[in-house]
Amino acid sequence: MKQIILLGASGSIGEQTLDVIRSHPELFELAAFSVRSRLASAYKILDEFKVRAICVKDEQDADEIRKKYPHLDIHIGDQGLLELAALPYGDTLVNALVGFVGLLPTLKAIECRKDIALANKETLIVGGKFVKAAVKEYGVSLKPIDSEHSAIFQCLQGNAHGSVEKLIITASGGSFRDRSRDQLQGVTVKEALSHPNWSMGAKITIDSATMMNKGFEVIEAHYLFDIDYDKIEVLLHRESIVHSLVQYCDHALMAQLGTADMRLPIQYALTHPARLPLMNSETLDLAKIGTLHFEKADFDRYPLLGLAYKAGRLEGNACAIMNAANEEAVALFLAGKITFLDIETYVFKAVESIEFIENATLEDIIRSDGAARAFVNEAVKGAV
Amino acid sequence: MKQIILLGASGSIGEQTLDVIRSHPELFELAAFSVRSRLASAYKILDEFKVRAICVKDEQDADEIRKKYPHLDIHIGDQGLLELAALPYGDTLVNALVGFVGLLPTLKAIECRKDIALANKETLIVGGKFVKAAVKEYGVSLKPIDSEHSAIFQCLQGNAHGSVEKLIITASGGSFRDRSRDQLQGVTVKEALSHPNWSMGAKITIDSATMMNKGFEVIEAHYLFDIDYDKIEVLLHRESIVHSLVQYCDHALMAQLGTADMRLPIQYALTHPARLPLMNSETLDLAKIGTLHFEKADFDRYPLLGLAYKAGRLEGNACAIMNAANEEAVALFLAGKITFLDIETYVFKAVESIEFIENATLEDIIRSDGAARAFVNEAVKGAV
Repeated sequence: MKQIILLGASGSIGEQTLDVIRSHPELFELAAFSVRSRLASAYKILDEFKVRAICVKDEQDADEIRKKYPHLDIHIGDQGLLELAALPYGDTLVNALVGFVGLLPTLKAIECRKDIALANKETLIVGGKFVKAAVKEYGVSLKPIDSEHSAIFQCLQGNAHGSVEKLIITASGGSFRDRSRDQLQGVTVKEALSHPNWSMGAKITIDSATMMNKGFEVIEAHYLFDIDYDKIEVLLHRESIVHSLVQYCDHALMAQLGTADMRLPIQYALTHPARLPLMNSETLDLAKIGTLHFEKADFDRYPLLGLAYKAGRLEGNACAIMNAANEEAVALFLAGKITFLDIETYVFKAVESIEFIENATLEDIIRSDGAARAFVNEAVKGAV
Repeated sequence: MKQIILLGASGSIGEQTLDVIRSHPELFELAAFSVRSRLASAYKILDEFKVRAICVKDEQDADEIRKKYPHLDIHIGDQGLLELAALPYGDTLVNALVGFVGLLPTLKAIECRKDIALANKETLIVGGKFVKAAVKEYGVSLKPIDSEHSAIFQCLQGNAHGSVEKLIITASGGSFRDRSRDQLQGVTVKEALSHPNWSMGAKITIDSATMMNKGFEVIEAHYLFDIDYDKIEVLLHRESIVHSLVQYCDHALMAQLGTADMRLPIQYALTHPARLPLMNSETLDLAKIGTLHFEKADFDRYPLLGLAYKAGRLEGNACAIMNAANEEAVALFLAGKITFLDIETYVFKAVESIEFIENATLEDIIRSDGAARAFVNEAVKGAV
């Protein structure tokens, strides 16, 4: 029986994780979870699962919960997330938090010798080096939840690490994939939010359009699979059916294909190396889909993808700066304060302007995150 | 060091097997080989490799060889193939023989506890039940060499047998894939031999056009991977880039893609579960290929594919009859004696007319093979 601590239970990945837990009660138990603001979600989860601990946003939410569940172990805020990650029970942490806030709970859970199923991107983008070292030191497993990395993880099964020649991460190309850079002048927020393949949160949809997201995935893949950046490639594949591929030294290409059902990577991260039936899931009918397309990913068209490789290779605080600057720039674009192409401009500026620290400590990285956010907001104000 | 006995050294698979052996002298040693008629090939191989035994077609060839290699252990004809398979040295038999003649050497090698790397289709189509039982009894391994089954074999790595939901074998559709059945009236031998994707022997090119070959592969997959016929599907894929797929119970689809280089499956069968660099091989560039197509395989369009499922399910001597009748019918078509569509007619007639033996012994199967060949030739004569 796996006892799961689920951070970010009310988000999309969180809900689908609950679905996986629900469908295999003989294997999984929800031990604790966090929600940020959706108390209604929290009540539903508490009614359904025998949960021992919860983390909510603030004291007020905690009081609300306490009224109905007086015996529940209630934790609060970012500190509460760390406390959930350090609970004496719960062997697996599913980290479905969004943003930088996800990093420290991952590190804490690893130190408490819990296995990690990771959906939080920032854990590796910002803290990859620390997380990798901690995983090694504490002997836990770190398994990917997003579809590209899960695909690679599946393609790696039964093969020696040394025989891997290349990881090939597929990319849909995002909402503006059929536009040239010139045609990106003056695109609206609404246009940017229309992802051709699926509906996701606003931040990740914009990151998909700029391919910053794919750049993040390259960095994550580097840390997850211990592979040089030279051996990671991005391939445009507009149908998003082939979730990613691995090329081996004998030039066999292994690929994982599937629908967009995120419960598959979530469940695989929890059951690996076994596979279990995925309740109410659809099979992928290739004959019905008919055609799959592949194109070279153009670094001139998607400069943030190139920047991600550069920042990834630099290590230090470079990725933290890039990530924080991007988060602020995307928020400013969504708020109508800057243009779509400005996102790139400000991210590049931040990476160029903020002091690079080669041997950055975790504290340096947290400071760089703050500095990059301040930089972008100041720069935008200055430009207005 | 693997000591390899190679049956069928002068054919295409044989030559590529030699290339694999040649490129990894630290791992592979050619212990013995057979050629049918190409003595020139035999000399070249004997000059290059330190071979201990050979099998040639007849006494005359044996005399020729003996003149130049007086100390070589020389075997002759079909009996000689069995003797090679039973040599006291040589731990792995690569069976690259073409036709029914390949079955008994496989069985003999298994009884002598040699591992098998199998390119000979008839071994499993005709003798699947016996071969499977022998593999179990003698505890040897049986690994596929052709590209579809190797792809499936690769996709199965790291996964439990019980989690397999479906094997999906891809098919190019052969030389007439863009013609309707009506348009198959009066097609010429030359047209039939123009395979759109690659150049192969005449027999297999015709079998590809009728999809008899794909039907054979379904039967082989059934025995190789111990999977019900209900769980084996054929998918039309004209580019032949995706070599085959496995669908799992969580609806993940694993696929192996690659170029048409047969050295990959040969080498993988010999190095599995490890992978080694494949000398001078090209990588597959999906961006360059651009588009992959998939279509449903139509059993009305390709009736021999349906017949293969039926014969496979029937077991007994059904597949032996189908295989032998097809071999004769294809030879008659290539000789200009019957039309392309007649191939199907005679194969169906043979399967319907020759007595079905449910619990066929190996002797029954050998007799049924002869009976089917005689039936087709008689029927053609009668029809003229």
